[in-house]
Amino acid sequence: MKTARNVLWIMADQLRWDYLSCYGHPTLQTPNIDRLAERGVRFERTYVQSPICGPSRMSFYTGRYVRSHGATWNGFPLRVGEPTLGDHLRELGVDCVLVGKTHMIPDTEGMKRLGIEPESIIGVHTAECGFTPFERDDGMHPDGDYDKTAPYDDYLREQGLGGANPWEEWANSADGDDGKLLSGWLMENANRPARVPEEHSETPYLTQRGIDFIESAGDRPWLCHLSYIKPHWPYIVPPPYHNMYGPGDILPPVRSNAERETDHPVYRAWQNHRVCQAFSRDEVRERVIPVYMGLVKQLDDQMGVLFEYLERTDRMDDTMIVFTSDHGDYLGDHWLGEKDLFHDASARIPLIVYDPRSEADATRGTVSDALIEGIDLAPTFLDFFGGDPKPHILEGLSLEPLLHGTPTDWRDYAISEYDYATRQSRLELDVDQADARLIMIFDGRWKYIHAEGFRPLLFDLESDPDELVDLGVEPEHEEVRARLHEALFAWARRHHTRITRTPQQVDRMAEGGEPPGILIGFWDEDEIREAGIKSVYPKVD
Amino acid sequence: MKTARNVLWIMADQLRWDYLSCYGHPTLQTPNIDRLAERGVRFERTYVQSPICGPSRMSFYTGRYVRSHGATWNGFPLRVGEPTLGDHLRELGVDCVLVGKTHMIPDTEGMKRLGIEPESIIGVHTAECGFTPFERDDGMHPDGDYDKTAPYDDYLREQGLGGANPWEEWANSADGDDGKLLSGWLMENANRPARVPEEHSETPYLTQRGIDFIESAGDRPWLCHLSYIKPHWPYIVPPPYHNMYGPGDILPPVRSNAERETDHPVYRAWQNHRVCQAFSRDEVRERVIPVYMGLVKQLDDQMGVLFEYLERTDRMDDTMIVFTSDHGDYLGDHWLGEKDLFHDASARIPLIVYDPRSEADATRGTVSDALIEGIDLAPTFLDFFGGDPKPHILEGLSLEPLLHGTPTDWRDYAISEYDYATRQSRLELDVDQADARLIMIFDGRWKYIHAEGFRPLLFDLESDPDELVDLGVEPEHEEVRARLHEALFAWARRHHTRITRTPQQVDRMAEGGEPPGILIGFWDEDEIREAGIKSVYPKVD
Repeated sequence: MKTARNVLWIMADQLRWDYLSCYGHPTLQTPNIDRLAERGVRFERTYVQSPICGPSRMSFYTGRYVRSHGATWNGFPLRVGEPTLGDHLRELGVDCVLVGKTHMIPDTEGMKRLGIEPESIIGVHTAECGFTPFERDDGMHPDGDYDKTAPYDDYLREQGLGGANPWEEWANSADGDDGKLLSGWLMENANRPARVPEEHSETPYLTQRGIDFIESAGDRPWLCHLSYIKPHWPYIVPPPYHNMYGPGDILPPVRSNAERETDHPVYRAWQNHRVCQAFSRDEVRERVIPVYMGLVKQLDDQMGVLFEYLERTDRMDDTMIVFTSDHGDYLGDHWLGEKDLFHDASARIPLIVYDPRSEADATRGTVSDALIEGIDLAPTFLDFFGGDPKPHILEGLSLEPLLHGTPTDWRDYAISEYDYATRQSRLELDVDQADARLIMIFDGRWKYIHAEGFRPLLFDLESDPDELVDLGVEPEHEEVRARLHEALFAWARRHHTRITRTPQQVDRMAEGGEPPGILIGFWDEDEIREAGIKSVYPKVD
Repeated sequence: MKTARNVLWIMADQLRWDYLSCYGHPTLQTPNIDRLAERGVRFERTYVQSPICGPSRMSFYTGRYVRSHGATWNGFPLRVGEPTLGDHLRELGVDCVLVGKTHMIPDTEGMKRLGIEPESIIGVHTAECGFTPFERDDGMHPDGDYDKTAPYDDYLREQGLGGANPWEEWANSADGDDGKLLSGWLMENANRPARVPEEHSETPYLTQRGIDFIESAGDRPWLCHLSYIKPHWPYIVPPPYHNMYGPGDILPPVRSNAERETDHPVYRAWQNHRVCQAFSRDEVRERVIPVYMGLVKQLDDQMGVLFEYLERTDRMDDTMIVFTSDHGDYLGDHWLGEKDLFHDASARIPLIVYDPRSEADATRGTVSDALIEGIDLAPTFLDFFGGDPKPHILEGLSLEPLLHGTPTDWRDYAISEYDYATRQSRLELDVDQADARLIMIFDGRWKYIHAEGFRPLLFDLESDPDELVDLGVEPEHEEVRARLHEALFAWARRHHTRITRTPQQVDRMAEGGEPPGILIGFWDEDEIREAGIKSVYPKVD
């Protein structure tokens, strides 16, 4: 076996934890991803640091909680100077390369303040969240200014799939009966075949780009973040995936009438969102979920292509492979659509780690129920490449002990945060933008959700795994709520920004006392001598 | 009256709140500072964000809590990219100039990571905590590497006061009987006359350097941070100040036997520090405190020189003058020396603000008992220079409403933090370095101190203004403790790092909904039209 030296970190966008057959989906078979799980560890309880792309990803890419990195919602730039996984790996001579999506917004004001040229290498790393972009594609190119520069449009044009907006007209549209295009943005069209030929659609395209990178990589070790933009909406997919599943294949919605009648203002406000009302309709679920499943199936097929390539090129021997997602999708569960809140449909993700090293042989094909957070990946990768731990910066835990079956103390709680200051619902609820904060703390059984200015929510996942019964006001659970409230405080008051001194430096400061020549609290020369300080002040002797 | 356009921000180092006659000291007369108070507002209850130089100053210079800027103790670099007062003022075309001490440590690793050249203008601002240094002098030049470059040593040499270390040999030594030098580091020598002629000692020197800056300043508005290094130790001063006060002039120690017998491990550990044991001896107090008073008296005399200069040059008409300190000095109170903990002797500071504008006429000579924090100065200065508020970055409150007597909502609590990870006492207490945290919350009556891993301390300053009775375990105060504990949590869970979007931008995001072209939750064209969205997807019409 070759020396392990690379990391291929695959991320799907908006993939629910339970839409893979290895996680128990009964009708959606994902044999390629399942096979990876058979060769690695499947983590059963993994939570993202925020159930929304931007902040979740910034946590993945920095190894830090949202409250620490501060990019609390989509469109909040990651502040200049925030250390990234790429920074840590480059110190070790490892390239940290992006193929696909990050949802990163550069802190252009901060860069300008510090004189960082966007076109310089440091400027690109700063603007791309620490990655060297082999291909950046956030997967949204609607008309307008959203993302004009993605190479995928050029690629489509090269295939003869042209027009003013190839992404929109080919990958995101179907043909209508009357020759006009049917928009993939409209969910009634979800089951139509996307116009783009399957081999040129986004998921195969990014697979090929990932392979292109690996082919082009030289002898230096690398981490490649192959970051797919699906099964995120627009929900539309080319044949054969567009009608591979039907309404008979979908799971019934996980929801209750009691939920519909919740008195919790924030939960109520979410239920009133357009997308949540839409997904509460059977018509929408039955049209969209089969297509969501088709997108996942396509992704699994592409994993087959990718893994076959890695096998063929002996990369399975030297490459750690991680498969995960950035958050889930409610798909109508709990009367909700999209993501944002903290039910498992939204905040829990799949995570499979294949470690090629022989030390991991003992855990192959096993399932871990440890509480994992998205921030654990960055320290895992640092560990894999032989870097010293950086607990003063990286707030996650290296998964290596869990992968190698060695003893370790693990965390007692998983945390996730959500800032709804930029949401219409915040205006409806008349909440000050500084207070539009939700925090989840989950101890493996009890999920407690702090809602600033409102009562908390509480779910007992042991007696109520579907999270249908809100115990946020039940008197008999006062003690549980108080315990989790206090645990949340213990977490909130930790250091989150003390990143400029290592633990080793702090220990040396504590052991070393004052710098040479600084004498505090000494009365006379005798005390100096008694303290064993020799001639610190030469004029003493 | 000329237009107000400059700020002179004077800071003393380690000056207790109550060692000025305007704050009630009975034997130490400070008529010049008192006169400033008569022309401005004297703030009676001002607290620093940490009772130690480095973190306290980083809070002053960033307008942010210690938990936000992360430079939690002396020697922790302020992270690169942390926005400073200087950054905010430069945006307005205002120079932000340093004369004296900051205790800033540059984040050289972060600067290197971002390619910031230390010699560039941006590099100097980054390394100097946002200031343009006219003169940087942290006031400690012992033998060794501590601070080799301070111009004060060259100045002394120019005055014929030479030697290997002029600061040490002249400003910090006295002549012994046998021709050998007596060290100012040794407190038995405190009452000896420092060898340096008074006019060349540090306080007059920095006054002159402040005047030099003002003389040299052009037409652009400026903020000058004139940051004295006294009455901070070494406790030694030239004549006539060295024997201006005697043991009969000092206040009795504020301490009780019950304090000496405290069961609180952190408080006990502090009492065991060398400097605390020293200041618990009458001999030390009687030798040192008169000299501390002499240093304050010298500072007040220099304020006379400075204010006379400002009067003479008509600067009093256009310059806001702020006088404050970075923390106090226990001087034996509570069986403690130095600072570090949260009794008023340590965490409370004097603060006087003279605002030349006519809007402030109504408050001249008044006393405010509002709870002020050190972080309030940065937003006050931003306000003074006409900048828009930046509440997403600056966590303090502009004092302008208090200075102008206009109505305002004020804070309910003052907060101060202390990280003892780098202290010997942390090793003695066997506390993990991540947990060596203390936080004070004070509501104007009750001072509650959270000590991670230990019981809290509580003082009732109404019935016990000297803070001698620790109510941290008294059952009858459980409710007060619970209330302040919860208030501390409310503060801790606030945003502290979400600095890259302004409130205006956040509002626009909430009001504007999704970016153009992004359609979430729409079923068909009818819903698009009903929502009043016109031709967002051109292929619809």
